[in-house]
Amino acid sequence: MTGREFFTARTVAEALAGFRPAHRTSAADVPLSAALHRVPAGAVPAPAALPGFVRSTVDGFAVRAADTYGASDGLPSYLDLLGAVRMGAAPAVAVRPGGCVAMPTGGVLPDGADAVVMVEYTAETMPGTIEVTRPVAPGGGVVRADEDVAAGAELVPGGRPLRAPDLGLLAAAGVTTVSVHARPRVAIISTGDEVVPPDTASLAPGQVRDATASALAGLVADAGGEPVVAGIVDDEPGALKNRLAEVLPSADLVVVSAGSSVGARDETAGAVAAVGDIWCHGLAIKPGKPTLLADCGGTPLIGLPGNPLSALVVFGQVGVPLVWRLAGCDSPPPSPGVRARLSRDLASAAGRLDVVQVRVRDGVAEPLFGPSALLSVLTRADGYLVVPEPATGLDAGSDVEVVLYP
Amino acid sequence: MTGREFFTARTVAEALAGFRPAHRTSAADVPLSAALHRVPAGAVPAPAALPGFVRSTVDGFAVRAADTYGASDGLPSYLDLLGAVRMGAAPAVAVRPGGCVAMPTGGVLPDGADAVVMVEYTAETMPGTIEVTRPVAPGGGVVRADEDVAAGAELVPGGRPLRAPDLGLLAAAGVTTVSVHARPRVAIISTGDEVVPPDTASLAPGQVRDATASALAGLVADAGGEPVVAGIVDDEPGALKNRLAEVLPSADLVVVSAGSSVGARDETAGAVAAVGDIWCHGLAIKPGKPTLLADCGGTPLIGLPGNPLSALVVFGQVGVPLVWRLAGCDSPPPSPGVRARLSRDLASAAGRLDVVQVRVRDGVAEPLFGPSALLSVLTRADGYLVVPEPATGLDAGSDVEVVLYP
Repeated sequence: MTGREFFTARTVAEALAGFRPAHRTSAADVPLSAALHRVPAGAVPAPAALPGFVRSTVDGFAVRAADTYGASDGLPSYLDLLGAVRMGAAPAVAVRPGGCVAMPTGGVLPDGADAVVMVEYTAETMPGTIEVTRPVAPGGGVVRADEDVAAGAELVPGGRPLRAPDLGLLAAAGVTTVSVHARPRVAIISTGDEVVPPDTASLAPGQVRDATASALAGLVADAGGEPVVAGIVDDEPGALKNRLAEVLPSADLVVVSAGSSVGARDETAGAVAAVGDIWCHGLAIKPGKPTLLADCGGTPLIGLPGNPLSALVVFGQVGVPLVWRLAGCDSPPPSPGVRARLSRDLASAAGRLDVVQVRVRDGVAEPLFGPSALLSVLTRADGYLVVPEPATGLDAGSDVEVVLYP
Repeated sequence: MTGREFFTARTVAEALAGFRPAHRTSAADVPLSAALHRVPAGAVPAPAALPGFVRSTVDGFAVRAADTYGASDGLPSYLDLLGAVRMGAAPAVAVRPGGCVAMPTGGVLPDGADAVVMVEYTAETMPGTIEVTRPVAPGGGVVRADEDVAAGAELVPGGRPLRAPDLGLLAAAGVTTVSVHARPRVAIISTGDEVVPPDTASLAPGQVRDATASALAGLVADAGGEPVVAGIVDDEPGALKNRLAEVLPSADLVVVSAGSSVGARDETAGAVAAVGDIWCHGLAIKPGKPTLLADCGGTPLIGLPGNPLSALVVFGQVGVPLVWRLAGCDSPPPSPGVRARLSRDLASAAGRLDVVQVRVRDGVAEPLFGPSALLSVLTRADGYLVVPEPATGLDAGSDVEVVLYP
């Protein structure tokens, strides 16, 4: 059992706090149409105030508010109709005392006016005369020129992935390119003499197609990264070390899915030790204990367990936050979740994070068990629940938060 | 107020149940690397059983289980070591009574063996002889050749967007192309004399840049659709009708964001009535009442309210499920959410769906109010909560589910 004696195990909490990338990806401008879910390199300020003019929020009549004071159904104010504001154009006429101008929602308030009275409280009792039956206060029926955003104010913060509504505010402000962090390049290396590419039509005895790389590529894409599938390395001594040396210069993060045997895991640890410093070997997580974390000259490397379920669980807990961090986002966006009642007792060791695949039906979360070598558990599961490190288990009937697969 | 007399209002529930697309997008093959979140056109069956051979799940020794019965620390079984199985290769040797073969995790069970005893319960007491101190039952330490998936069984269901783990199972089965529904093409038309493109450097008085189209494009992309930004149409009579006729032949869904004035809304309704059948004009939702839904020869059309906040709320509630349905997915994937305590009373009318933008801090959801013409509410909000149609409001301190913006 060479290579296993020196086994520095850590908790997931320690890994999240202590195993952090030293760098962030560089920033580059992208057009707004390609900016969804990208992470701005810094806060984006408003080039000018929004909406930029005093804007009517109702259909009605621009007035001097004082001309409407005391107006009621019994004692209306009567104002001279001086003209109409057209959408998207400067008002052609100002409002003088005793006068009013017809306003569409979104129109520019004319000079002299300080409010817009809603059309519902008016009537054109005779041509050219508007009857007003409710008073309006100064500023009523309008938004100020800088009420939405002041010039120089933050439109969107840095470090938070852009959401669909953000794109609308940026467009309104005329910001059509945004400086965002590059998608972190995540090199995915598979190892194992038994592993063959997914497009292998028929398998020789003992061969398995590479499942982990395709699933990891999906998780990387979901985390805003760019998966770079770097192929399969057999267990021949030196082969993994050479492949690591090839991919490290252009990768922001390297992921190695180890072979499933102890021998293959030892080979992985040896190759990683040759190109970097091992930060931990062994993680207090179930499944996923034989995880290895290393720093390869500033580029983080994750050595994942051999079986695909364990590999995906570990990457979800430790790799996904790393991918977001590399792109400048310290708080990954929320995952979909649902509350459910646990169908049975779950045991766990204190100090270990347990990730349990579950099916959710009618508000009940049913843990899916079976050999962790089975892949189909992952497609039968709706999501998973986490038994936190301090807990020694969860009781049947507990209210649990299930993280749903997006 | 021409064009407003005939106002068939509906609830959101009625729209979701009754306003459904007649067609689904066509199916085409995509490689697995491009299949994430795409919707399979049908269930994908396994071409062959997985793993395809009886596979060891532990490091240890392949045995005949009967040879280990009764084995204990005090009374071990002793077996002849006949050889070793190599990863990814057919066993070179069979197991005969009284014999065993060394096995790596993931190796092929040799002929004659029916179980694998874990290495932890063995010792090589002298060269060529393995001492076994625990019994193993037939089938112990292995998975059957079809235990993960049987030949012909469903790998992934049709109609459910593919998730990252699904890609792993498909790869394992050698399925490297998947037939998926085309991304629904969503034509987005903006209207209004005051609306100018986002890249307009400086605005004339009364002009506003098109915020809605960019934000809608983001929501469409999040729903797996392909946004087709079809430009801005001014309020000139006939212009919208002509643009609709241009985009309808190649669109799966058409979205028109109306101008904000009543006049612009009437113009939209008139143009839509000329190319399709209006299903409802007016939706019991706040904000978003002046929504129009129409069927244009089998292609659904949504006429959205003029202000961007209302437009995005309505598209989120009514448009997003339509985009998923067009792609063959009747149950849209879950949105991220969080439970929180409501900070204040919220009033609502029974029969109307209210969508309230909220900020969430320390488990408290604080509603964001202000003129709905303001865009910045959308970027200050963390998400929204829905006051359902039957409710007449929510009390301060209520436990609410906040849908978070992804």
